[in-house]
Amino acid sequence: MKEQEFIKIIKSTLNSPYIGDDCAYLEDLGMVISQDSLVEDIHFKKEFITPYQLGYKTVMVNISDICASGAEPKYITISLSLPKDTDNEFIEQFYKGAKYASKNVEIVGGDITGSDKIYISAAAIGSTKNRKVSSRKNAKAGYKVIVSGEHGNSATGLNLLLKDNHTKGEINNKFIKAHLMPEAQIEFSRRIAENIKEDYAMMDTSDGLADALFQIANASNVIINVDTTKIPHDLEVDMHTVLYGGEDYQLVAAVPENLLQKIFGYTIIGDVEQGSPSVRFDGIILKEPENSLFNHFKE
Amino acid sequence: MKEQEFIKIIKSTLNSPYIGDDCAYLEDLGMVISQDSLVEDIHFKKEFITPYQLGYKTVMVNISDICASGAEPKYITISLSLPKDTDNEFIEQFYKGAKYASKNVEIVGGDITGSDKIYISAAAIGSTKNRKVSSRKNAKAGYKVIVSGEHGNSATGLNLLLKDNHTKGEINNKFIKAHLMPEAQIEFSRRIAENIKEDYAMMDTSDGLADALFQIANASNVIINVDTTKIPHDLEVDMHTVLYGGEDYQLVAAVPENLLQKIFGYTIIGDVEQGSPSVRFDGIILKEPENSLFNHFKE
Repeated sequence: MKEQEFIKIIKSTLNSPYIGDDCAYLEDLGMVISQDSLVEDIHFKKEFITPYQLGYKTVMVNISDICASGAEPKYITISLSLPKDTDNEFIEQFYKGAKYASKNVEIVGGDITGSDKIYISAAAIGSTKNRKVSSRKNAKAGYKVIVSGEHGNSATGLNLLLKDNHTKGEINNKFIKAHLMPEAQIEFSRRIAENIKEDYAMMDTSDGLADALFQIANASNVIINVDTTKIPHDLEVDMHTVLYGGEDYQLVAAVPENLLQKIFGYTIIGDVEQGSPSVRFDGIILKEPENSLFNHFKE
Repeated sequence: MKEQEFIKIIKSTLNSPYIGDDCAYLEDLGMVISQDSLVEDIHFKKEFITPYQLGYKTVMVNISDICASGAEPKYITISLSLPKDTDNEFIEQFYKGAKYASKNVEIVGGDITGSDKIYISAAAIGSTKNRKVSSRKNAKAGYKVIVSGEHGNSATGLNLLLKDNHTKGEINNKFIKAHLMPEAQIEFSRRIAENIKEDYAMMDTSDGLADALFQIANASNVIINVDTTKIPHDLEVDMHTVLYGGEDYQLVAAVPENLLQKIFGYTIIGDVEQGSPSVRFDGIILKEPENSLFNHFKE
């Protein structure tokens, strides 16, 4: 997996303690920052998504990273690189969608430049005031593993778009809506980060639930046991897609059991135990995903 | 100028007070943020710049935005979108250059995704602690206009690269070095922002000195008078390139005269007077640049 290889090189070149989580925690400024990109024909296809939905998704994807850290999403900047034939309507619709998605989050800047294809990169800022910040290194033996909602819907929606003749921007289908207009789990994140005292691990499941579980197990040096029958999912969606399909933008967290009486709106899917890092699905140790649906370096 | 048209649409769609300066000032968090992108074949050509220099320039360009605000550059995140054939050596050299440029600024994250061409977007964070933040709206009648250094060198370097057969990454020529490895004006910014009490305007000259002067004059609703004979420049560089060539990453500021006894390392090139917004070069009102060397939407 080339991306992981590149990240190893970056870590060793920079020798920085910050690289590792989706957000960087800047303690002196009381904030976290993350940056995420959407590239035409890699992350989206113009024939499936409207400019409004693209603006919406750009913001949600970046808010989701902030939610994964436990911080409160506050500000976002958006850089757009656009082909020369881009019209005013695209810009207006893109920013209307971005504004709708951002709710209480302020869009405060960015830049516009030319390019061959559409490249979007956004940076999001979260405030850590009254919040405990997560790290994927923080899962501990005895912790419970919880998720915020259904998995596999977005990948199922993408498959529908790829297979059938769907109208651009169609969202009356539940799965397609999950793919084109995901929702960041702002409330789930807030409930945990405001109520927890102990260190905890949390990630969003943008690269798939299995991927997030492996990242936490490896970074925390623990075994994660998952009962797949407990994972919330639509009955139409097969378990492979539930585990490996990405872009649901749900949250998965490993938290101490005593937190659970203080919060609501979660589903327990497993627990953490000591041992050589791995993830066991119904007792079976599966290999780490190498070629998920959303490994953008492979086609 | 399409970019300006797009920015007008964005402003009216978002109705946000933050859009306008290169950096957004997030007062509640005591910080500024800016985001800037570099796109292959729009902002750079692979045959001219080494991966090391590209990493260096990515960081410097973003630090320069923070310097323009008067804040102290602190953190940076970098998103890279790279073609599939990108090798480990590119990543290592890119980040070595980025690290060299960043000095006391920490590179804290970002992401890597696939793409057809190289697309780089970085977000930079500055701390406003003990600093007065600039705005291009803040130039006032009676203020002096000062610059940090020579203009026109970078554009001259680009022209040399485009015309002649230069070795990739060559920097023994002063102009080519100015183009490939510019230096952000960290000290110039610090001296002003730590010593000034009054509101002031400051911009970097990434899109050219004339462009920055027009932006300040328009946003502040003032006339800026410039004595072109005072603008620091190499004698080999003609005045058109000095005024309209971009990417020098110097700073230009409009500041009250009483500041000047407290700082050093500046050159006075003009002053501000009341009146309908315009820029007068040696008394002549020139038209606002519509098609500068660095208007990336036109080829």
